[in-house]
Amino acid sequence: MSKGEATRQAVLDQAVEVARQVGLGGLTIGRLAEQAHMSKSGLFAHFRSKEALQLAVLEHARADFEAHVARPTLKAPRGEARLRALFDHWVRWIGLPGGCPFVAAATEFDDQPGPVRDRVVHDLRDLFDMINTIFRTGITEGQFRADADPEQFTQDFYGVILGYHYVRRLFGDEQAEQRARRALDALIEQARRPA
Amino acid sequence: MSKGEATRQAVLDQAVEVARQVGLGGLTIGRLAEQAHMSKSGLFAHFRSKEALQLAVLEHARADFEAHVARPTLKAPRGEARLRALFDHWVRWIGLPGGCPFVAAATEFDDQPGPVRDRVVHDLRDLFDMINTIFRTGITEGQFRADADPEQFTQDFYGVILGYHYVRRLFGDEQAEQRARRALDALIEQARRPA
Repeated sequence: MSKGEATRQAVLDQAVEVARQVGLGGLTIGRLAEQAHMSKSGLFAHFRSKEALQLAVLEHARADFEAHVARPTLKAPRGEARLRALFDHWVRWIGLPGGCPFVAAATEFDDQPGPVRDRVVHDLRDLFDMINTIFRTGITEGQFRADADPEQFTQDFYGVILGYHYVRRLFGDEQAEQRARRALDALIEQARRPA
Repeated sequence: MSKGEATRQAVLDQAVEVARQVGLGGLTIGRLAEQAHMSKSGLFAHFRSKEALQLAVLEHARADFEAHVARPTLKAPRGEARLRALFDHWVRWIGLPGGCPFVAAATEFDDQPGPVRDRVVHDLRDLFDMINTIFRTGITEGQFRADADPEQFTQDFYGVILGYHYVRRLFGDEQAEQRARRALDALIEQARRPA
């Protein structure tokens, strides 16, 4: 990795942290320069505009999610065990200071058409495809009933994660994770039970 | 209502609309002045600071939620029917342009201590208490089993609403509402079934 690239990565680590806390909209080159102890002009050399910076942050956050959530998940056995692994890794990732940068970005940009919104939707679709595929494997493996609805499960699973995210972060409620786990158990039991 | 008060209410209607779209952080007195065709100094007379404006917007959004969601919900019979009424009114309210202003505010301010975050947490707690109380009534009325967990149901219910909110608004997926309805059915069935 060249020195320029190493600096870029270090700055993006900082930027993701800032974005987790104040959102992508609050992440200005000025603010980031202050946080990273760099000059604004130095940062401008790396990211030519606020939008380019926002897109780079999303890409960096996605790489982080892949390294700490998606790839470790794939080590678990297919189907149910993998769904539970995804849940575990995801909950841990959400627990980092500032919460999930994608939840923040999704809320901020759902009404603002453009490349940032497109990128958020694209990433979230990939995530939904991942949940969907793991669930389908559970059907193929005979763990879930043949007529279980993967789209239904995916939206439900995401809802459990979001419920956890908000209750944990706003109320500081330590029971939130256990409740989310019970909700996941119930979803999985539902998928098993004959209709 | 005095003329000053009528103006204030009209401006706050506008402000809630802006906040639904760009969040409370993006709601500046300058931006609102432009949207409401008023002078910045005229707006400063009503709201002395950005924070005062944000708090006024939350209060106004809450009054709106009470008028269009909470009060109509209470007309439904106690317990299950009232939970379903809450769901229906809430889904309709979320469907307004820009989505739910509280979801936006909760995401923005979960990491920013101060009066705005306190207000968001306060309002969300009241909402959770409402769901909780309706569910408890369902137990008292014998609709749900005696050992059903109201805190569990409340977090689950909120998760269903959030899952709907994101899937509908980011993917424009028209099936999102039907899936959320099925998820609610499943939660209610779970609460009925003996352990």
